[in-house]
Amino acid sequence: MKLVSYKFKQNLGDLRIGFIINEKVYDIQEGYRQLLIFRQEEDLANAVDTVLPADPDRFFSIGESAIERAAEAYNYIRVSDSHFTAFHLEDLYLSNPVLNPSKIICVGKNYADHVAEMKSDLPEYPVLFAKFNNALIGPEDAIEKPEVTTKLDYEVELAVVIGKETSKVSQEDALDYVAGYTIGNDISARDLQKRTPQWLQGKTLDRSTPIGPWVVTSDEMTEPSDLAIRSYVNGEVRQSSTTSNLIFDVPYLIEFISNLITLKPGDIILTGTPDGVGFAMDPPQYLTGGDVVTLEIENIGKMVNKVQEPE
Amino acid sequence: MKLVSYKFKQNLGDLRIGFIINEKVYDIQEGYRQLLIFRQEEDLANAVDTVLPADPDRFFSIGESAIERAAEAYNYIRVSDSHFTAFHLEDLYLSNPVLNPSKIICVGKNYADHVAEMKSDLPEYPVLFAKFNNALIGPEDAIEKPEVTTKLDYEVELAVVIGKETSKVSQEDALDYVAGYTIGNDISARDLQKRTPQWLQGKTLDRSTPIGPWVVTSDEMTEPSDLAIRSYVNGEVRQSSTTSNLIFDVPYLIEFISNLITLKPGDIILTGTPDGVGFAMDPPQYLTGGDVVTLEIENIGKMVNKVQEPE
Repeated sequence: MKLVSYKFKQNLGDLRIGFIINEKVYDIQEGYRQLLIFRQEEDLANAVDTVLPADPDRFFSIGESAIERAAEAYNYIRVSDSHFTAFHLEDLYLSNPVLNPSKIICVGKNYADHVAEMKSDLPEYPVLFAKFNNALIGPEDAIEKPEVTTKLDYEVELAVVIGKETSKVSQEDALDYVAGYTIGNDISARDLQKRTPQWLQGKTLDRSTPIGPWVVTSDEMTEPSDLAIRSYVNGEVRQSSTTSNLIFDVPYLIEFISNLITLKPGDIILTGTPDGVGFAMDPPQYLTGGDVVTLEIENIGKMVNKVQEPE
Repeated sequence: MKLVSYKFKQNLGDLRIGFIINEKVYDIQEGYRQLLIFRQEEDLANAVDTVLPADPDRFFSIGESAIERAAEAYNYIRVSDSHFTAFHLEDLYLSNPVLNPSKIICVGKNYADHVAEMKSDLPEYPVLFAKFNNALIGPEDAIEKPEVTTKLDYEVELAVVIGKETSKVSQEDALDYVAGYTIGNDISARDLQKRTPQWLQGKTLDRSTPIGPWVVTSDEMTEPSDLAIRSYVNGEVRQSSTTSNLIFDVPYLIEFISNLITLKPGDIILTGTPDGVGFAMDPPQYLTGGDVVTLEIENIGKMVNKVQEPE
């Protein structure tokens, strides 16, 4: 399934969880409610929000059981889709699928070619740093470039969304705890990132970091280990690699992180970026207002965001 | 006011916001509800939870207006306290006053003597790093020392709790956005902190970081700029300084951070630690199971936590 957080463009309503079938969006809770009625489970149908919340935050914080119910609705709609209202993407606003994760854990220096271009050393352990939720935006939002930075840079990354609480999980079992995968742009203000030894202040600027356009669930994408990953600025290819080049792959990262930090449903892990960032170009090329950044990961899709400067 | 998150030891009930008067705890919402009845505002009294939530997370995420209402209840109780049920501290469990801040922003290298003992350079800008909420525990909880570290260290810090959303505030106005102050122990696993260039993995171990015992509101503590700050391990003084030694003081930090990151009610800023940490002793002295860490900040109080190793 491709899970989205959506609302109607013409409406100020709340964001709801949907999925995409044949380029149209269906409401997950409504699909599940109709399935329950079909099964003559009227009582549960009336209380559907308690088992399958429409609110994206509650949906992802429940994680596994909500996703399993969503899959039941998904299969029901696919075999009987004439009964259901399908929304056209052009009528909707899509937000970042996970709105308020309890953590955004980022991994630095995780592609050898990027480590080399940053003139850094290969890490012995995964390099972890954080973003806060103030940074998150969705696939249709503009990346905000505040005046405080003149060196704003893109970083395409495979983003892992956790589906089930876990602590001290092994690599072998790690993928069982993944809800799905999406694309993240680990936007980095290089001047702020590098003016102190800790990167946080260059990594979590308000409304800087797009995540989306949807979460591809792990039942559909069982293997994140060899996906083409690319970024473009104004149509020019800047980064082009594959996740097979990750120094620490997804199962390793989940084992490593969960040995230190309990992972919760909805948590996001940004797994690192390949070479080709603007900082490493000669001369360096930073983002300015009006630039269009396109990110692509195989089997997930494409996310396009404009850069916006204050007026 | 001294704001606490409390529940009854004998009870599995939810945590509620209270304040302390003469070493006893009063329920803030109940005090305010009775004040509303006294004022003959029965309708509002029946809907009191919407304007003054009992839930600590909702209380701090509302911030300023909730704290103003709490102050009305506080004054009402003080002039007529025989009407109210007072709870004895020994019957209660106190939690960290803020349970789930949207951010925990930590400042490193912020006392010159500590920078020297860490053999580091004086920073030109505040060094910011993060903890996640998985790390937070309260004043009565044990600091958990997992097997993954053998170099667990204490750091006493003045903790600022934000009371009102702010972006790009000036130093002059910064303290208007503070809800209050508490004590934080920025527990650091030195081996994990230093094995990569980013500190996060040594700073946010599960249930490592006590905050408390209460938030002293900024109406009562208008000046955080010269407070004695101390730590003890098993009764032995380890750190002893004053917040007047902060390189970047509280107003400066709030201006600096809010220029990068929108601050929200309930956000916590840990302002840095003075010299005397275990890492810098000769030989280094790390925390082990059974150790008792006592932190003290003038005009706030004292917080005592045991260290606990896995069985």
